[in-house]
Amino acid sequence: MDSFIMKLIAVSKEKGMISFATGLPDKRLFDTEGLAKAALNVFEDEDVARDALQYSTINGLLPLREKIAQRCRKEMSFNVSEENIFVINGSQECFDLIGKMFIDRGDRMVVDDPGYLGALQSFSLYGPSFIGVPMEEDGPDTERLKGSLKEHPKLYYSVPDHQNPSGISYSSEKRKEVAELLSGSDCMMVEDDAYGELGFDGRVGPPIRSLTDNVILTGSFSKIISPGMRIGWMIVPDGMTEMTMKCIESSSLHANSFSQNVMNCFLERTDMNKYLGKIRKEYKRKSKLMLDLMNDHLPSELRWNTPTGGMFILLRTKEGTDAMRLYEAALRKKLVVMPGRPFHISGGENTIRLNYATADDEGIKEGIRRLASAYREF
Amino acid sequence: MDSFIMKLIAVSKEKGMISFATGLPDKRLFDTEGLAKAALNVFEDEDVARDALQYSTINGLLPLREKIAQRCRKEMSFNVSEENIFVINGSQECFDLIGKMFIDRGDRMVVDDPGYLGALQSFSLYGPSFIGVPMEEDGPDTERLKGSLKEHPKLYYSVPDHQNPSGISYSSEKRKEVAELLSGSDCMMVEDDAYGELGFDGRVGPPIRSLTDNVILTGSFSKIISPGMRIGWMIVPDGMTEMTMKCIESSSLHANSFSQNVMNCFLERTDMNKYLGKIRKEYKRKSKLMLDLMNDHLPSELRWNTPTGGMFILLRTKEGTDAMRLYEAALRKKLVVMPGRPFHISGGENTIRLNYATADDEGIKEGIRRLASAYREF
Repeated sequence: MDSFIMKLIAVSKEKGMISFATGLPDKRLFDTEGLAKAALNVFEDEDVARDALQYSTINGLLPLREKIAQRCRKEMSFNVSEENIFVINGSQECFDLIGKMFIDRGDRMVVDDPGYLGALQSFSLYGPSFIGVPMEEDGPDTERLKGSLKEHPKLYYSVPDHQNPSGISYSSEKRKEVAELLSGSDCMMVEDDAYGELGFDGRVGPPIRSLTDNVILTGSFSKIISPGMRIGWMIVPDGMTEMTMKCIESSSLHANSFSQNVMNCFLERTDMNKYLGKIRKEYKRKSKLMLDLMNDHLPSELRWNTPTGGMFILLRTKEGTDAMRLYEAALRKKLVVMPGRPFHISGGENTIRLNYATADDEGIKEGIRRLASAYREF
Repeated sequence: MDSFIMKLIAVSKEKGMISFATGLPDKRLFDTEGLAKAALNVFEDEDVARDALQYSTINGLLPLREKIAQRCRKEMSFNVSEENIFVINGSQECFDLIGKMFIDRGDRMVVDDPGYLGALQSFSLYGPSFIGVPMEEDGPDTERLKGSLKEHPKLYYSVPDHQNPSGISYSSEKRKEVAELLSGSDCMMVEDDAYGELGFDGRVGPPIRSLTDNVILTGSFSKIISPGMRIGWMIVPDGMTEMTMKCIESSSLHANSFSQNVMNCFLERTDMNKYLGKIRKEYKRKSKLMLDLMNDHLPSELRWNTPTGGMFILLRTKEGTDAMRLYEAALRKKLVVMPGRPFHISGGENTIRLNYATADDEGIKEGIRRLASAYREF
């Protein structure tokens, strides 16, 4: 599967190719001016600069952790101490660290079905036995989750807001149900909040972390500020801080302190809600553009979700058909889409994931034309 | 042991404390002006900036890999394709990736004795059984290495130039012997070149990688340009490129592309040999300052090496004494040193590692005075 994704990335770069395939945010939205000023800021004070370029603390830059803690209090309905926040090189590294800390070969682990492929690949290296819990329209099938928890899984990995690849968010009821199920279990939830800040009208609901303590919450600046700066974080329960510190030290010493300092300066000068408002509005607009075009150009036997945030639309061809053929037909029309099968523990052959964030308006328009034309061949 | 090091780092920050304990390079040597210009450069071109802030290639920025390949050709006596070079978040992450790719619990692994603690900790997470090969004054005990290779170890981790913690470099003869032993074995060497560029009079010898193919060479900008930017690399044999790519993708997606772009701009404007000349000269001067003071103030029953590069002096108290007591006495005098025991597979109780790079001249002078005074209590 890995090599298939690499082929996908390579093919996306071919001339004339339009890509709806990856998880790239819209680079036109990067605040290059603000980040340039922040970088300048770091270098303005000789002492600050030398410390930003030196080895740093294992758990991350304190003022940055304070800002993350503040956002948890103000926007995410829970209190957390800076001591429980660990800044690392992107949330992908979180998954690796969590896998390393929790999973021994053969251990059970519950995941969304479909679920985020990158995380599944990361955890896979530690050899867990995955139990898939179907994503319904309002979140996980809680009966199935309840059953799965009886098998004593070590971890439950899930994306409650604007899930990748389905675009689904948990309903309030499901949030409460999941939190209750976890509270009574010996299973740790890994709550991936990669898209939580990208709700078109703000956050869609309280994080599970605000409802129960059995949670490691992972966050990231990748989708909202810059993925190239590789700054993610995890918020761990009290009992886990020492183990996490040791694991980070052994695995990568500490996150990039230069990036952390630039990010911290950027955040100091930025009104986060105003900043996010602009991005949310633009993604809402682009999702509507793509959805309108899909409604206009694609036949009614195709089905898809209407996202309320995040970056993805999951397209379903008729039950029993193989969407891989649609992927191939699209490729011949110079459009790259992401087959949904690899995100699934079982099934999913009839799904295709579309990203409306990466391309510009022209790309979205021409891409949907190509998709419609490919579907006629399908 | 981990928590001991964390305590050490914490204690180093106390007011009035002088530290010879860590592996920090001299932050006064960071070229803040050059790096500020490089950062500005990245932001000057809107397209370059947006790409530097976006997700990037798994194996690292091509122009940066080309520069590393060029340096291998020009200064390190071997040819390598950019395809075999992987830029990652510091060489600590290399060790983690290599451990992940090679070590299953119980596998044998040969290491220097004493050897670099950070690497040993990283590999430890994968549960190898370590076989220590004593470091002699001119490199590893090759008879012992030969014997160890018969036990089919998966890896042989070593630092041939200005080793941490001993300061020892392999002689030319030992380089050839080690290369020959490896060529006839099924063991992969991990050649840690962290200090190779810090020879006071240039490189002390050809890397083992230039003598045999059975080598993964790890390099880093941490000791020569900036550790906070977290840019290291590994150069892998032909058969390993695909596996390495997959392992990086699953573990951390890719190295910080913002840092990589700044570093690349910096290197484009920098005459590397001239730049390194300045750093080598300064470290040579500081090592001489410390050695002269040690000669003047420490009694003759203490023994130590005379480094030809790198950052460390390994001090030996009399055979049979416990240098941990010297560490404790020094701490009471507000000097932090690093006990050598944890670097050893066996023995080493009578060793202390001193770093002459971190402190300024005043710190070195006062630190050695404190060490001498602590020794009188010892």
